Amino acid sequence: MKVDRLLFGAAYYDEYMPYDRIEKDMEMMVAAGINTIRIAESTWSTWEPEEGVFDFTHLDRMLDAAEKYGISVIIGTPTYAIPSWLAKMDDDILALTHSGQNTYGPRQNMDLTSPVYRKYAERIIRKLMEKVANRPCVIGYQIDNETHPYDTCGPRAQAMFVEYLKDKFPDIKTFNHEFGLDYWSNRVDNWDNFPDIRQTINASIGAEYQAFQRKIVTDFFNWQIDIVSEYKRPEQFITQNFDFEWHNYSYGMHPDVDQRNAAKNMTVAGCDIYHPSQDRLTGYEITACGNIARSLKDDNYLILETEAQGNIEWLPYPGQLRLNAYSHIGNGANSVMYWHWHSIHNAIESYWKGILSHDLVENESYREISRIGNEFKAIGSQIMNLKKDNKVAIVLDNRSLTGMSYFPTGTNGKSSYNAVFRAFSDALTDMNIEYDVIPPDRKSLSKYSLVIIPALYSAKEAFLLSVNKYVEDGGNAIVTFKSGFADEYLKIHSDVQPHIIRECLGIHYDQFTYPKDVPGCSEWMELVTCDTAEELLHYDHRYWGQYSAATINSYGNGNAMYIATLPDGAIIRELIRLLMDRIDFYDPDKLPFERHKKVTVKQGINEIGNHVLFFLNYSDDEIRINNIAGEAVILTGRAYETAGGTTLGQGEEFLLLPWDAVVLEYPVNS
Amino acid sequence: MKVDRLLFGAAYYDEYMPYDRIEKDMEMMVAAGINTIRIAESTWSTWEPEEGVFDFTHLDRMLDAAEKYGISVIIGTPTYAIPSWLAKMDDDILALTHSGQNTYGPRQNMDLTSPVYRKYAERIIRKLMEKVANRPCVIGYQIDNETHPYDTCGPRAQAMFVEYLKDKFPDIKTFNHEFGLDYWSNRVDNWDNFPDIRQTINASIGAEYQAFQRKIVTDFFNWQIDIVSEYKRPEQFITQNFDFEWHNYSYGMHPDVDQRNAAKNMTVAGCDIYHPSQDRLTGYEITACGNIARSLKDDNYLILETEAQGNIEWLPYPGQLRLNAYSHIGNGANSVMYWHWHSIHNAIESYWKGILSHDLVENESYREISRIGNEFKAIGSQIMNLKKDNKVAIVLDNRSLTGMSYFPTGTNGKSSYNAVFRAFSDALTDMNIEYDVIPPDRKSLSKYSLVIIPALYSAKEAFLLSVNKYVEDGGNAIVTFKSGFADEYLKIHSDVQPHIIRECLGIHYDQFTYPKDVPGCSEWMELVTCDTAEELLHYDHRYWGQYSAATINSYGNGNAMYIATLPDGAIIRELIRLLMDRIDFYDPDKLPFERHKKVTVKQGINEIGNHVLFFLNYSDDEIRINNIAGEAVILTGRAYETAGGTTLGQGEEFLLLPWDAVVLEYPVNS
Amino acid sequence: MKVDRLLFGAAYYDEYMPYDRIEKDMEMMVAAGINTIRIAESTWSTWEPEEGVFDFTHLDRMLDAAEKYGISVIIGTPTYAIPSWLAKMDDDILALTHSGQNTYGPRQNMDLTSPVYRKYAERIIRKLMEKVANRPCVIGYQIDNETHPYDTCGPRAQAMFVEYLKDKFPDIKTFNHEFGLDYWSNRVDNWDNFPDIRQTINASIGAEYQAFQRKIVTDFFNWQIDIVSEYKRPEQFITQNFDFEWHNYSYGMHPDVDQRNAAKNMTVAGCDIYHPSQDRLTGYEITACGNIARSLKDDNYLILETEAQGNIEWLPYPGQLRLNAYSHIGNGANSVMYWHWHSIHNAIESYWKGILSHDLVENESYREISRIGNEFKAIGSQIMNLKKDNKVAIVLDNRSLTGMSYFPTGTNGKSSYNAVFRAFSDALTDMNIEYDVIPPDRKSLSKYSLVIIPALYSAKEAFLLSVNKYVEDGGNAIVTFKSGFADEYLKIHSDVQPHIIRECLGIHYDQFTYPKDVPGCSEWMELVTCDTAEELLHYDHRYWGQYSAATINSYGNGNAMYIATLPDGAIIRELIRLLMDRIDFYDPDKLPFERHKKVTVKQGINEIGNHVLFFLNYSDDEIRINNIAGEAVILTGRAYETAGGTTLGQGEEFLLLPWDAVVLEYPVNS
Repeated sequence: MKVDRLLFGAAYYDEYMPYDRIEKDMEMMVAAGINTIRIAESTWSTWEPEEGVFDFTHLDRMLDAAEKYGISVIIGTPTYAIPSWLAKMDDDILALTHSGQNTYGPRQNMDLTSPVYRKYAERIIRKLMEKVANRPCVIGYQIDNETHPYDTCGPRAQAMFVEYLKDKFPDIKTFNHEFGLDYWSNRVDNWDNFPDIRQTINASIGAEYQAFQRKIVTDFFNWQIDIVSEYKRPEQFITQNFDFEWHNYSYGMHPDVDQRNAAKNMTVAGCDIYHPSQDRLTGYEITACGNIARSLKDDNYLILETEAQGNIEWLPYPGQLRLNAYSHIGNGANSVMYWHWHSIHNAIESYWKGILSHDLVENESYREISRIGNEFKAIGSQIMNLKKDNKVAIVLDNRSLTGMSYFPTGTNGKSSYNAVFRAFSDALTDMNIEYDVIPPDRKSLSKYSLVIIPALYSAKEAFLLSVNKYVEDGGNAIVTFKSGFADEYLKIHSDVQPHIIRECLGIHYDQFTYPKDVPGCSEWMELVTCDTAEELLHYDHRYWGQYSAATINSYGNGNAMYIATLPDGAIIRELIRLLMDRIDFYDPDKLPFERHKKVTVKQGINEIGNHVLFFLNYSDDEIRINNIAGEAVILTGRAYETAGGTTLGQGEEFLLLPWDAVVLEYPVNS
Repeated sequence: MKVDRLLFGAAYYDEYMPYDRIEKDMEMMVAAGINTIRIAESTWSTWEPEEGVFDFTHLDRMLDAAEKYGISVIIGTPTYAIPSWLAKMDDDILALTHSGQNTYGPRQNMDLTSPVYRKYAERIIRKLMEKVANRPCVIGYQIDNETHPYDTCGPRAQAMFVEYLKDKFPDIKTFNHEFGLDYWSNRVDNWDNFPDIRQTINASIGAEYQAFQRKIVTDFFNWQIDIVSEYKRPEQFITQNFDFEWHNYSYGMHPDVDQRNAAKNMTVAGCDIYHPSQDRLTGYEITACGNIARSLKDDNYLILETEAQGNIEWLPYPGQLRLNAYSHIGNGANSVMYWHWHSIHNAIESYWKGILSHDLVENESYREISRIGNEFKAIGSQIMNLKKDNKVAIVLDNRSLTGMSYFPTGTNGKSSYNAVFRAFSDALTDMNIEYDVIPPDRKSLSKYSLVIIPALYSAKEAFLLSVNKYVEDGGNAIVTFKSGFADEYLKIHSDVQPHIIRECLGIHYDQFTYPKDVPGCSEWMELVTCDTAEELLHYDHRYWGQYSAATINSYGNGNAMYIATLPDGAIIRELIRLLMDRIDFYDPDKLPFERHKKVTVKQGINEIGNHVLFFLNYSDDEIRINNIAGEAVILTGRAYETAGGTTLGQGEEFLLLPWDAVVLEYPVNS
Repeated sequence: MKVDRLLFGAAYYDEYMPYDRIEKDMEMMVAAGINTIRIAESTWSTWEPEEGVFDFTHLDRMLDAAEKYGISVIIGTPTYAIPSWLAKMDDDILALTHSGQNTYGPRQNMDLTSPVYRKYAERIIRKLMEKVANRPCVIGYQIDNETHPYDTCGPRAQAMFVEYLKDKFPDIKTFNHEFGLDYWSNRVDNWDNFPDIRQTINASIGAEYQAFQRKIVTDFFNWQIDIVSEYKRPEQFITQNFDFEWHNYSYGMHPDVDQRNAAKNMTVAGCDIYHPSQDRLTGYEITACGNIARSLKDDNYLILETEAQGNIEWLPYPGQLRLNAYSHIGNGANSVMYWHWHSIHNAIESYWKGILSHDLVENESYREISRIGNEFKAIGSQIMNLKKDNKVAIVLDNRSLTGMSYFPTGTNGKSSYNAVFRAFSDALTDMNIEYDVIPPDRKSLSKYSLVIIPALYSAKEAFLLSVNKYVEDGGNAIVTFKSGFADEYLKIHSDVQPHIIRECLGIHYDQFTYPKDVPGCSEWMELVTCDTAEELLHYDHRYWGQYSAATINSYGNGNAMYIATLPDGAIIRELIRLLMDRIDFYDPDKLPFERHKKVTVKQGINEIGNHVLFFLNYSDDEIRINNIAGEAVILTGRAYETAGGTTLGQGEEFLLLPWDAVVLEYPVNS
C-alpha cells in the first residue's frame, strides 16, 4: 500500500484522560506535525460498559475533534481486551492454557475459538463499524491488536486439533509412524481416544499443536476482516499490529503467529517495534523486525507503535527519537506512530511513558517529536513509499523456530532460532547490506544473488531440493548448522545429514556437541567432514581439529557455504564478505557510500525515481562521511537546515552529530 | 506502658519438651536472671486436641511452676496455628489466596474472616482466659502472633471488599474515573458484576485490596481485644508480636499490616526483631525496626522475640548477645525476650536454635544470657522506661510501600520502599542521630526540627499541603524521589511533579530513568530542574549533566531538600549533615559524645531524670572513647564491673571490648 | 550372579525404527561384538494399542532376529510407561502428587498403588511372559524401569500411610510425642482425623512419608517378581535398572528408592550410570554409583544403561568410551549396555544419542564400541565375575539422606547428604583406595578395617552402639558432622551430641554454624570440644579457633576420627592417610602399584584366581607407569595388541595413551 504522506502520530486514548483536554491535545499534535492517531483498540468496556448497553461518547468526541483538526484516524477493533461482564458469559471465555485457565484482569486472556466470545465480538465490531465507516477522517482499520493464540488448549481447541490432524493423516498408522508415537508408549490407535496434548513429551505433537494455534490466529483475522469489509469504504485499509518475539523488547520472528499467512487478506502490514535505548541503542531491532514486516507483503509497512519515552530505562538521549524515526522510514516504513500520546495515570503501563509525561505539558520528547513531524511535512514526500530492491535474503520459518525451541542450542533456550537469525541480521546491518526476509518456498529464492538460511531445522523436502536447484542454477547460499535436520513434523531424517542439501553443500556430519573453549564458536558445533566442499575454518580443538567449522562448495553455477557453529559476529562478517568477494557480488540498484563502523546506511528509490540514502549514526561521536556516490541534496541532518536545499558534491564530506540521521537524495540525472 | 523491671526472658514450650524438666528449666532461668516467659501462642491443638475436648495440663504446669519460681507470664492466644480438625470444619477455613487455597500444615494458613474459624477461636480464647486471667503470674496477653491477612481473597473477602469500595465511592462512575478503569477495558459499571481482583492489572485496585486486607487484620485484633478484655485484670496488658518485612531477617515496615492502627487498642506495642549476626551484625535492624515499634504508640515497646543462637548462620560471637540486648534497651525497649528457651527436637524450626541447644544443658549462650540477666537485675531500674525525645523523624506509610511494590525502582523490587527507608535509617544510625517514625499526617510534623520523607509515593493532598506549611513555618524537610507522585489510590497526578510539594521544594521534573554508570547514584534518577531551589549535586552524565540530583530550597522560614536518586550512604550522610549545618541543628535533650565510626550511641532519660548513654561497639576492635559529656557512672561494660560504681570524669577515656556495650549514666546534677 | 561372558550391548527398539532394518542392525551388532540387547521396557502401547487388543509383531521380530544372530535378550516389563487409554481408566491412575495430579504425556506418571493400574499391568506382564519365557535367547528380565514412587500422595496412598503409622505406633500419644506434633498446633489425637501430609512442616512426618513411598516401590517390585517368577525358566535372572540421585547425571544414592531392600528378591542388581564427559570425565560417578550397585547384593552387578554418544555435551573424545567400559568392569560390573543402539527420530530424547546417529550408519562411536566388543570377546573371560575384597567401607542410609534434605548444609540443598558421600568417595578414588558401600547395621561393620560414616543424620541407637563396639573391638571409623544427631524419625536427641558415638569419638559439641572465610572448610562447622580425643585440626577463626575441626580418639583397640566440617578434598585425603598410617593399614587382597595422580587403579581377582589391575587414565596426557607388582600380562591397552601376550616384567614401564585403559593380569604363580 502506498501512502500520500508519511503517517506520523500516536495512539490516542481520550477515555483514559484525567480531564477533558481534547482540544488542547489536538492543537499540540497539529503543532508537532502529527497527522494520524490510532484509537479504540482497548475500549470495549467503554463502548459497552454493560452487556447490550452502548456508549460511544468518547469515540464521537475523538472523531469530531480529529476532523476539526484535520487528523486522520486508524480505528482498532476493540476485541483484544474483553469487558469483565463478558468474561462471565461462559465457562471458557477465558482460555484454558498449559498453565490452567486464564483469569480476569489482563488483556489477551480469552479463547479466540469461543463461540460466545465471537458472538459478542461480532456485535461490538458491527456497532463500531456503523459509527465509523463513513467518517471522513477514518483512513483504516487495525484488526484486534498483537493477536496471539493465548495458548488456548482447552477441550474445544484440542477437539479441533484432532480434526485438523485427521484431515492431514487419514490413516492413524501413518500418523503414529510420522510422529514416532511408539516411543515411551505414546501410541494412539484410535482418534476418539486422543490423549491430552498439554504435557506431551512428543515434540512432533507439541510443535504441530503450535502450528494449529497459529492457524487459529489466522482464521480469527480472516473472520474479522470479513466483518469489517462489509462496512469499510474501498480506500480504507485493513492492517494488524503484529509484534515480535519479546525479550523485554522486539527481538525476532514471533513464535505464535504465522504473520505471512495472516497478512494475506490485509491491505498493509503493520507492526510495533520496541528496542533498547540510551547507550544500548543499535538500530538492530528496527532493521531485523522491520525487514520481517516489510517482507510480509513485500511492500512498505506501517510502524503502528514504537516507543516515545517508553519504559523507564528507555528514556531517549537527545537526538535518538529522530534517529529512530529515520531508521524506520529508511527501512521502508511509511509511518511512525508512537505508543502513545500521553502517559497513563493508572494501571500497569503507567511507567511506559508516551510523548507527554503525566503532566501533559510540552517536554523534551514533545519538542523532538515536533522536529521530526515538521521535517516529515517538509521532506516526507521524498522519503515515503520507498522502493527497496535487495539482492540478499534471509529465509525465516515458524516451524524451524518451534523446532529449535524444543531442541535449543547451548544457552539460548527458546530464542535459539531467533538468535541465529539475529546474528546474521546484525552482521549484515553492520556491513550495511540490506536484505529481505523470505519464506522457505521455491519461488522466493530466484530473485536473490545470496540467500542465507539460518538453522532451517524443520523443512519440507521440496524446499531443500529447491535450494540445491537454486545453487545449481547460479544462486549462492549460506546455510547454518541444524538446517535440514528434521522434516515438517520434526521427525529427524534417517539418512546422512544435512538431509538433501548436503548435495549442494558437499559435506556431511553425524556428530555434534556444544563448543567449550573453542575460540570464536558458541552455542553449537557440528563435526563436519568435507566431501566436495573446501574447508574455510576448522575447530581449534585438540580432538576435533580435524573437523570443519565452515566450508564452501562450488555446485553447478553457484556456491554454497556451510557454517557448522554460531561464530562471533566478526567471523560471520568475514565469511559473508568472503562469499561476496568470491561471487563478485554487485547490486545495480544500490548506490555506493563511504563506510563507517558506527554508521548504518539504508537506501531506497523514492516515488520520482531518486535514490535516497539514510546515514544513521548509532553512536555519540561526531562523524564525517565522504559523499562518494555523486551529487546529492541534504534533505535533513541536525547540522543542516531541513529541506534547505544544501547540496553536496561528489567527494564532499558531511557531518553527523551524535545519534544523528542525515538523509541524502540523489537526483536521478546526477 | 511503663514497667517496674525490665522484662527478660524467653518463649517457653513445656508441651514441646522431650521429657519432664520444668523444674530444671525454671531453676536455670532464675539463675540466669530470667523473670518472664511467654507461653501458649502455638498451642491450640494441645489445649483442644479434638473438637470440644479440652486439656490444659501443660498450661497449669507452666503457671504453677512460674508462680513457684516467681516468673511472670505473658499468655498468647493460640489462634494463629489451627488444629487439623478445625481445618476440616468448613471449605474455606484455609484461606483462598492468589496462589490457590492454603493447605493444612503450616501455621497462619486460615482465613481471618471465616465465621467458623471465628466461632472456634472465640471458644478457645474464652476457655483459656477463664484459666489464666486470675493467675497472679500472668502479667499480660499477646493477641494471636505475627498476624497477617494471609492474602485472603476468596469470594467472601472479595464481597466484603466490594462493600468497602461502595462505601468509599457511592457513585461507581467516580470509582471508574479515580481508578482509571477504562484502561484495557477494565471498566465496571455495576457493583453486582464486580470482577475477580486476583489478577487485576490495575494497580489502584490491587493496592486498595491490600489496604482492605490490612483492615481485616486490624478488625481481627479489635475483635480479640474485646474478648480478652472481658476477662483480664486491669493491670494486665494487651500486646501483639508485630513483625517486619522479612528478608530472612527483619528489614523494614511490614507491607500487610497497618501496625499503627492495629496498635490503637492495645496497651503496649510488641514486636520481634531478627537480624544477621557474626561479622554481619550492624545493629541497623534493631534501630530501624525498633524505631517503628516505639513509634506505634510513641512509647516504650516490648521485644517479644529476638534470636538467641537463632538460625545456623546467626550463631553469635562472644559478646554479641549482650551487645544486642543493650541495643534494644537503649532504643527504648522495655524487654528482651528470646525465641526461645530451648531448641526444638522436631519439625521445621529445629535449626532455629534457642538459648539452650537440643541437649538442654548450660552452654555458651546460656552463660552470656545469664550475664545479661544478672546485669539487668543490677542496673535495670536505671535503664528501663527510657524517655527518648528526638528532633528528627522519618515519615513511613503503608500505601506508599504498596505503591512502590507495584512500581519498583531499578533493582529492589517489592522492597523498593523499605530500601529507601533503610538507606536513610542506616545513614542516621551511622551518624548517631536518633529519630522517630511518624505517619503522614499534619499534626505529627510540628514537633520535629527535621523531617525525612522517603519515597512518599502515595499521599493525600492534605498531607502534601501540610509539608509546605511545615517548611514555611520553619520546619526542615528532606524529600526523596517519587514523593507526591500519586494520590492515595495510586492515580498519578496530572500536573507538574512533584505534586504540591514542588512549592516548598522549588523544583520540577517530568523525566526519569534508571542510573547506569552514574557515579554515586542507584535505583532511580529524576531529571530535576531547579525553579527557586539551589542545586547541590548534578548527575555526572554526558546527556543529563544539566539536571539536578539534589537540591535545597529556602521556603518561608524553613528549608526543603530534594534528593532525586538513591545516593550512596556517604552522600546521604553528607547531604543530611549539610542541611543540619545550614539550620544549625541542635537538640537540647541530648548529651554530646565522642564519635567513632564503629560505635553506635543511643541515649535517653531514665526514670529519675538522668541521661543514660549506650555505647555499642559493632566491630571486633577494641575501642577507647573519651567521655566528653561530663561526669558519669559506668553502669556496665565488659571491661568493668557491673554496677560497680566506677565513675568517669569528663574527658576520661573508657574502653569498649570487641562487640561490647558500655552504658553510662550521667547524674542529673553533674 | 556370575555370567559366562561379559554382557555387551544396548537397548534396542525395533518399534521406534523409521524403516525395517532389523537384519542390518543385527549384522552390525554382531560385527561389533555385541552379544546382548535389552528390549520392551517402554512398549506397552505397542503391545496393547487399545485396551485388550494385543500385537506382539515387533517383539516376535526382535526375538527371531536375536536368535538368528545369536544375541541374548533381556526383557523389560513395559509397566513404567502407560498407554493413553489406561490413563483414562480411572480418576487416579495418574498419581496425585505434591504439585497436583500428574498429566498424561511423560512416562512414570502413574500411581503404583492404583488397583486399576495393577490389574492392567498384571495382564500385559502375563501376556508378555507367555510370549517370551520359553524363547532360548531370553536370558533375564528387568522389572519395570527406573521405578520411583512418583511422589504419590493422593487419598489412597495417604490412607495406606495412616495404616502404616498405626502399625508402628499402636498408641497415638507415642506417635505425637516421637514426632513432636504439639509444635505449631499439629497434634492429632485421632487416627481417623489424620490431616493431609502434603504441606506438613513436620519433618518427621514428611520423612516418614518418604520412607513409606520407598516401601511402595519395594512392594511393587516384589509383586512383579512374583508374577514373572510364575513363568520364567530357572536360569533366567530378574533384575531392575536402578538409577541414582540425578544432577543431569548420576550423582549418588537415590532418595526415593530403598535399593538394598528392593533388590532382595532379585537375582542380580542392575543400574544405569550417566556422567559428564569430554574434559569433565573423571570416572568418579562410575566408582561411586557402581559401588552402591555392587553392594546391593554384595556381588557383581549389571550396567544396564550408560551413555554412548549421550547428551549433546557428552559426545565422548576418542578413547573415552573404551576407558569407561573398563572402568565399569574393573569396578565389578559384568556388563556394559549402552542406551541405546540407535538415536531416536522423534520426541524428547532425540538428542540423547545412541551408538548410531540418526543416519544409522557406521560412525566414530560404533567403531570404538566395536573395538571394545571385540576386546571383550578376546579377554572377557579373564576380567568378568571379578572378585573384589575391600577393607574400607562407607555407610550409606536413605533416612539420613532424607533428613539432610530437610535440614541441608550451607549450599548443597537436597544434595547435602550425597555431597558428603561424594567428597569421601572421590577422595578415596583419588587415593586409589577401593571401598564397599554398607548399610547402617551392626553385622556389616566387622569385616572392614576402616569404616567411613558420612553425615549419618538419622540413626537407630542400636547402630550407634555397634559403632562404639566396632571401634572398641579394634575397628577404625571416620565419622563426619551431623552423624547421630537425630533418631530414625528425625527427632533430634536431647542429650549431648554426637549421641552415643561421642563415647568412641571422645568429643562433644552443642554449637554449629556455616563456615564463612574459614580456610579449607565448607558447608558446615561444628564447634567441637575434645574430651578424650586428640585435636588434629582446629578452625582458623578469630572467635572459634578454640574448637576442633578434626579429632582422633583411641578407643578400646580401635581409633575413631571425627570431622566436624566438610574439608577440601586435599584435607580429606590427608586425614584418611593419617588414620591409615596410624593403624598401619594393609590389605592382603590387593597388589601394590605405582601411583599417578591422573590414573585411577581398580583391581580384583578373576575366576582363575589371578589378580587383574585396571589402570585408567582420566586425562589427556600420555603417562608411563612402572609395574611394581610383579610379572604381568598386558590384556589390553591402546598402545598394545589386545590379548597379544605382551608380558611385562616387574619394574618395567608401560604406556597409557590419553584416556586409555591398560589392563594387566598377574598369573597366580608369578
